[in-house]
Amino acid sequence: MTLFAKAALLPSGWARDVRLTLRAGTIHSVTPGAAPLPGDHRAEILLPGLPNLHSHAFQRGFSGLTEHRGPTPDSFWTWREMMYRFALTLSPEAMQAIAALAYAEMLEQGFTRVGEFHYLHHAPDGRPYANPAEMSARIFAAASETGISLTHLPVFYAHGGFGPQAPGAGQRRFLHSPDAFARLVQSCESMARPQDRIGLAPHSLRAATMGEITTLAQAFPNRPFHIHIAEQQAEVADCLTHTGQRPVDHLLSHAPVGPDWCLIHATHLTPAETRALAASNAVAGLCPITEANLGDGIFPAADFLAAGGRFGLGTDSNVQITAKGEAQMLEYSQRLGTRGRNICADHGSTGARLFRAALAGGAQALGAPAPQLAPGAPADLVALHDSMGFAMADDRLLDRWIFGTDLTVADVWAHGAHLVQQGRHIHAARLRAAAAAACRALL
Amino acid sequence: MTLFAKAALLPSGWARDVRLTLRAGTIHSVTPGAAPLPGDHRAEILLPGLPNLHSHAFQRGFSGLTEHRGPTPDSFWTWREMMYRFALTLSPEAMQAIAALAYAEMLEQGFTRVGEFHYLHHAPDGRPYANPAEMSARIFAAASETGISLTHLPVFYAHGGFGPQAPGAGQRRFLHSPDAFARLVQSCESMARPQDRIGLAPHSLRAATMGEITTLAQAFPNRPFHIHIAEQQAEVADCLTHTGQRPVDHLLSHAPVGPDWCLIHATHLTPAETRALAASNAVAGLCPITEANLGDGIFPAADFLAAGGRFGLGTDSNVQITAKGEAQMLEYSQRLGTRGRNICADHGSTGARLFRAALAGGAQALGAPAPQLAPGAPADLVALHDSMGFAMADDRLLDRWIFGTDLTVADVWAHGAHLVQQGRHIHAARLRAAAAAACRALL
Repeated sequence: MTLFAKAALLPSGWARDVRLTLRAGTIHSVTPGAAPLPGDHRAEILLPGLPNLHSHAFQRGFSGLTEHRGPTPDSFWTWREMMYRFALTLSPEAMQAIAALAYAEMLEQGFTRVGEFHYLHHAPDGRPYANPAEMSARIFAAASETGISLTHLPVFYAHGGFGPQAPGAGQRRFLHSPDAFARLVQSCESMARPQDRIGLAPHSLRAATMGEITTLAQAFPNRPFHIHIAEQQAEVADCLTHTGQRPVDHLLSHAPVGPDWCLIHATHLTPAETRALAASNAVAGLCPITEANLGDGIFPAADFLAAGGRFGLGTDSNVQITAKGEAQMLEYSQRLGTRGRNICADHGSTGARLFRAALAGGAQALGAPAPQLAPGAPADLVALHDSMGFAMADDRLLDRWIFGTDLTVADVWAHGAHLVQQGRHIHAARLRAAAAAACRALL
Repeated sequence: MTLFAKAALLPSGWARDVRLTLRAGTIHSVTPGAAPLPGDHRAEILLPGLPNLHSHAFQRGFSGLTEHRGPTPDSFWTWREMMYRFALTLSPEAMQAIAALAYAEMLEQGFTRVGEFHYLHHAPDGRPYANPAEMSARIFAAASETGISLTHLPVFYAHGGFGPQAPGAGQRRFLHSPDAFARLVQSCESMARPQDRIGLAPHSLRAATMGEITTLAQAFPNRPFHIHIAEQQAEVADCLTHTGQRPVDHLLSHAPVGPDWCLIHATHLTPAETRALAASNAVAGLCPITEANLGDGIFPAADFLAAGGRFGLGTDSNVQITAKGEAQMLEYSQRLGTRGRNICADHGSTGARLFRAALAGGAQALGAPAPQLAPGAPADLVALHDSMGFAMADDRLLDRWIFGTDLTVADVWAHGAHLVQQGRHIHAARLRAAAAAACRALL
């Protein structure tokens, strides 16, 4: 496959008239200042594909169906009850259908890899399926159906809260013994395509003890290692009560947190925790739309970036699936919190800073090579269309994509496959119909 | 024109199988539980069209082009410098072309009326055009070209700051004497179509003295009367310094604020100001995306709604034009600020509360009959498509539209004209090309 782009974001910066050749899932050559050849796919603006570092694919199935107020004040915790009810009824077939729609939509939005933080393992009654990796197999099948590259993160979940507390009935599909979990990880290895990665995800300090977390980290080294942390203030308070430390402080002082680690949310940080998290070289896994939707709070991005912190973006609950929207909400939440503008910018373009950081941080967190338009890199490409036809080749394109509406995703390639064409996934109609049927049965 | 909708939001609530007839810009009949007849336009989900109560159409021309950081900390005030530079170069032709694109996009998003807060009156050198209403005429022309209903709000601007200070050079296109302004209002009357309204907009407490504001309110009673207020903390501080009162307190205690009034932004309110604004029955003109983009701050929506306050939604800077997005950002800014969920809901659906409030408040602020699917109401209609085909007929549709991605605008009618078909304005291509050409000349 060959492409010709009028403007492309290369590792060295923006270039015009760039011709690329793709071979076997990777970029073979990149030639700026070239002429197009017959047969080249013509693109306007070419970017590397973004990693989506945090997804619970099944939650796409109830997008928009928890936006109503109950008799008690609404919070993350009342939302979680609704989410559990949906999770408890989901069949393996429905999981695959809903995940495939979510992954097709991710591709349509410019994500070429997804980190699936996967905790829905067992049958509705809590017993393992005949194949204990049945639900993970459905995630791999959805990734294969859609063509997105997958970092699968099977979740270790053992407890219902700090203490540890016994798990609740709503958590029965999530639970593993350490041995059964280790077998699940091995099963996942056998399902991975060459472009896929297998990581691990102790769910949270609520659901795994520090001993379990550090044992897992030792048993499975050099893999993406993700954990939810400090998303809600109630969790911070519980952690303080049980450990005398705040969650991020507690984790950093007891576990070997380093570049393989991704701390999902990390919303509630003291200035000292912010600096320590940055210094760990772990990635902060920010999910700005979900964090707004769930009323989590505002991540201290300016201080974290000033300390050299690394972050990536995730779609988490998938209430909306949008790459530009996550970057935009990260910046807008900062502006609302600080009453300034261009908070995530260093100097120059805010969009470019957000895009480059999310690209590098997302790839690091997902154990994947950083997407870049360079020979040898994965052929994960996003072509944008500029409906205003401004013929720019500079960072303003990223500002206009993320904050405006004139630029839209036209084409996407993942691992070299041309999966999104004219804005639609090549199997969009079929995948949407299957997911809609699965969801209708759950309404 | 006749329509048949599978689900429609009537004044009495949701109904299925609703047949409507339109005549001369109004709804003639509404029949729930009907059968479709040959020739009916078939819609899935039918809503009244939303009013967009605050637009500066020309700012659409630099959407996404101010999202970069300069050498000094970025703020509303550095953004305003960039905006002034763009405003000072804009020709009447460019104004019309850019406004027409903005209005077509508003229709595509479900807005059927726009309140144009119009302050760019004079030639780039500050002198009046041969026709002093030239620039207003361009706004009327853009509304006519696109079919959107217009509440035109010519702006009275006389000073550069509290004191009053002399206007700055960047404000020279905005300025009027009271007499010249009165003539402009009369000129606008002569350009209005039957569905249009003419209001007034003293720009702000910075740009008009209290004496000028109250004189205008007496001279032109019973019209929409809009003013920017308490958007930025620096403005609150300036007002305190010069008057001893905060802006909303100062306005409410010196001007006859009532149901004709719309206070744009009103972001920075004490609890007492919040209650007093609600009690005035004026509309709070909220522009949540612009308020996030400009780092204005978070409006105290929960307290304002608890006090019975009225609000509507506006797209203001038009950095993005989206009806659902404004409602979503209002709610998300509240969740980020309070760390709860469904803050704008009363009980039940958050989407429905936001939609109904914005419909009523927007219409009140724009001096227009409230859009509703009822005989005699304006034929301002929005048809949504549900890509999941859930066949619902309840408020969850509004939650899913505003917070999810499955529902999209398919068709829009304004004043009875079928202006958006299959998601696109009927003149979209031509209007976009003209606006793009105008903008390219300004880059």
